[in-house]
Formats: sequence, C-alpha cells, structure tokens
Amino acid sequence: MRASVPARALWVQARAEADERWREVLRLAAHRGVEIVEAGKTEMDALAQDGAHQGLVLVLPEFAYADLLDLQAGSLLVALDSITDSRNLGAIARSAYAFGADGIFLGERRSARVTAGSWKASAGALAHLPVAQVTNLSRALKSLAADGWTILGLAADGATAVESLPATITEDRLVIVIGAEGAGLSRLVKEHCDWLVRIQMAEGAESLNAAVAAGIVLHAVHSARTAAKEAP
Amino acid sequence: MRASVPARALWVQARAEADERWREVLRLAAHRGVEIVEAGKTEMDALAQDGAHQGLVLVLPEFAYADLLDLQAGSLLVALDSITDSRNLGAIARSAYAFGADGIFLGERRSARVTAGSWKASAGALAHLPVAQVTNLSRALKSLAADGWTILGLAADGATAVESLPATITEDRLVIVIGAEGAGLSRLVKEHCDWLVRIQMAEGAESLNAAVAAGIVLHAVHSARTAAKEAP
Repeated sequence: MRASVPARALWVQARAEADERWREVLRLAAHRGVEIVEAGKTEMDALAQDGAHQGLVLVLPEFAYADLLDLQAGSLLVALDSITDSRNLGAIARSAYAFGADGIFLGERRSARVTAGSWKASAGALAHLPVAQVTNLSRALKSLAADGWTILGLAADGATAVESLPATITEDRLVIVIGAEGAGLSRLVKEHCDWLVRIQMAEGAESLNAAVAAGIVLHAVHSARTAAKEAP
Repeated sequence: MRASVPARALWVQARAEADERWREVLRLAAHRGVEIVEAGKTEMDALAQDGAHQGLVLVLPEFAYADLLDLQAGSLLVALDSITDSRNLGAIARSAYAFGADGIFLGERRSARVTAGSWKASAGALAHLPVAQVTNLSRALKSLAADGWTILGLAADGATAVESLPATITEDRLVIVIGAEGAGLSRLVKEHCDWLVRIQMAEGAESLNAAVAAGIVLHAVHSARTAAKEAP
C-alpha cells in the first residue's frame, strides 16, 4: 500500500487479530478508495497463491504494459534478455528508476511477467516506470539501432570494462541489455550490441545477481551523464 | 547442490515424479557423500518450513560463524547494521565475494542470521566468505578504527559521493557499513564512520535495494584498488 501499488480490492480476513501495521493497511486502503472485502480463512487461503497472507490479500489489476514506441521518447532504456524471475524484473525496475531510465522492455515469450512479486521487489518503481513487451527482442534492438540508439550489452566476456566506457557514449540514446545469470545474452541479441561490457570481479568469483549487475551499469551511466551535464 | 551448500542430508519423497533436474540433485548428493533419506509426503511437508519442496529437501548443518579476529587478517570487510532479511544477507555476501571482500560481520541481535534463504541468495558465496557475529556492532567498529581500519558508511545523506571517493582510501584496510533500507545507519554506527558515502540517484528516486547499493560501493572500491595495483 505504501508503494502505491495499483490495487483493485483489499481482502480482509474476518476476526483476524489486528495490530498497528494491519490497521495502517486498512487506513491507507480506505484513504485511496480501494474496495475492502471481508472473507473467511478458507477463501483467503485460496486467494493467496502461496498460502501466506497474514489476514490481508491485495488484489491487483492486470498489469498495463506500455508500447515500445512510447518508451522511445526517452534516452535511457533497459532491455531484459531471457530474465525469467519476476522478482528480478521488479528489482531491476527499482534500480532502473533510481538511475533515471525511461522504461524497460522484454520479450513476450520465455521471459518474466509483471507479477505481485515484481511489484514488491520494485518497491513502487513499477508505478512510475513503463514496461513494454516485444514480440522479438533482437528485432526490437535492431530497429532501435537503425533509429540511432546505441546498444550496450552486459556480458561476462565483454571486451570493454564498465569503468572504461568512453564518456561520449553515455550521452547517446542508450539501451542497456541485461541477460540471464547463467546463460548471459543470447547470440542474436549479442549481434546487435555496439558495446559488450563486463564488470570486473575478483579472481575466483563467478557471477553477480542480475539486478546487482544492472544496478552497477546503470549507476555508471547515470554518473557519467550527471558529470557531463555539470561540466562547463 | 551446485553451489556447494554444506549439506547434512537430502530427504527424498518416495514415489515423487522424477525429472532430469531431480535426478541431477540425487547424482550430486551421491557424488558428494550426502546421506539420502526416503520419506513420505507428510514428513516432507513438515520438514520444509514453507511447505514448498518439490519432493526434495536439503537439510543444512547449523551455520559455523567465524570470529571477527579471523576476519582482520584481510583488508576489506563488510559490516551489516540492522539488516534483518536473511536473503539480503546472502545477496550482499554474493557481491562481497565477487568484489574481493574478506568477510562480513553483523550484530547478534536484531539482525539477520544465515539461513537456507541466505545460502540460496548467495549462490554459493557463503561457502567461501566467512561471516562473524559481534555482540555490539558500534563497539566492534570502534575497535577496528583504533586498529587502523578506515570505516566507510553508506548513507543516503552522506557528504561524499561514491564517485568522488579519494583513491587513497581504497588502499587502506577498509570496512564498508551497509544499513537497513528504510532507517539507514544507526546513530552510534554513524559516529564511528570516517566517511559517509552516498550513491547519487535520479531526481524523484527514493532508495535502492540494500544488496544493489552494497554492490555499487564494493564495485567502486574493487575498481579503484585494481587500478592502483596496475598503475606504474
């Protein structure tokens, strides 16, 4: 409720024990005009997919995906290649919003969708940051490249270290592509990248969480852009 | 199993449907000499605390915490101030290990413990990175400072941007202190910090995930140290 998740209804278990946090949820729901429905434990258990609901279930509307065309008014986008964990999608959205990205896009198939878990991991960022689904990710990247966007892919074996990115490219309209943790970027997606960027790790270290890796690159781009704006 | 989590036993549900991943777990367990126990659904459900087990439950030994004294042989430590989410502890451990930290320490009370969730989020890093519990975090920081360690706290209102950290301090023996997402560092802990460092975000953005914030600072320190080593 605090993260302004768009809610359709709040289901409340009749006679559940009320504590201060519980009462705050009800207050916020009433304040925002969210419909409040009283129900018994059996109904609540059925409604909460994982069975854990502490006497409260928030029902979300279907997520309204944006169109990639709308995202192109911006200058910094994040593309997700085969990220299948919905919470990772939310966590990346949180960092993308924190570092000024204008939107996220990802393939329709074999990719995460925006779920309640995404909302939670995004800490509200999904209320501000549009997410678009595309039929074919590598085709979408190709069309953005033709339109003048620079495509920067994150890859463990990337030729350029993120610390050595030329300052000029951070000023371009930029798409940052994040791949899945194990497999990385798919071959077709890699082919459309102008830059393949790696994050230097300590010897022996294997991999970073996809949301942490995305955060590091987004932070680097945001810092470089801020520095460029402040330069005389 | 792939992340080399130290396992005491693998419980296997009799007559559960076997797929390729399931068989791989059994192969790995046999290869590593982990005891395999067959059980019925009722026992398995009781054993898996959240009820979700897909016919397999790995039983972990109690986590063996290190002593802060052992950690002091290193030169880069991460301290956690009131981080209560065990998965966040694991996620931070994963980044700490990736960027060459020598250990993590945190308070005994009102702090996360190493759980199965931490192991999962750490993607195996907890098998390599020691974690110590201290009775009193601010006292531990004070004693490290007296011993010549530089204490760097991450704070939303920090006076120094992480991008403007003087290169010299990255060469010191360094403790990076990460606070809880909402409350940040506690007052007593802040008092022991030589540097309070902030991560510059876009306008309107509120906060980063603690593990992402930790990853960004650890990456900055690791890059600066690597650059210093490579300089003539």
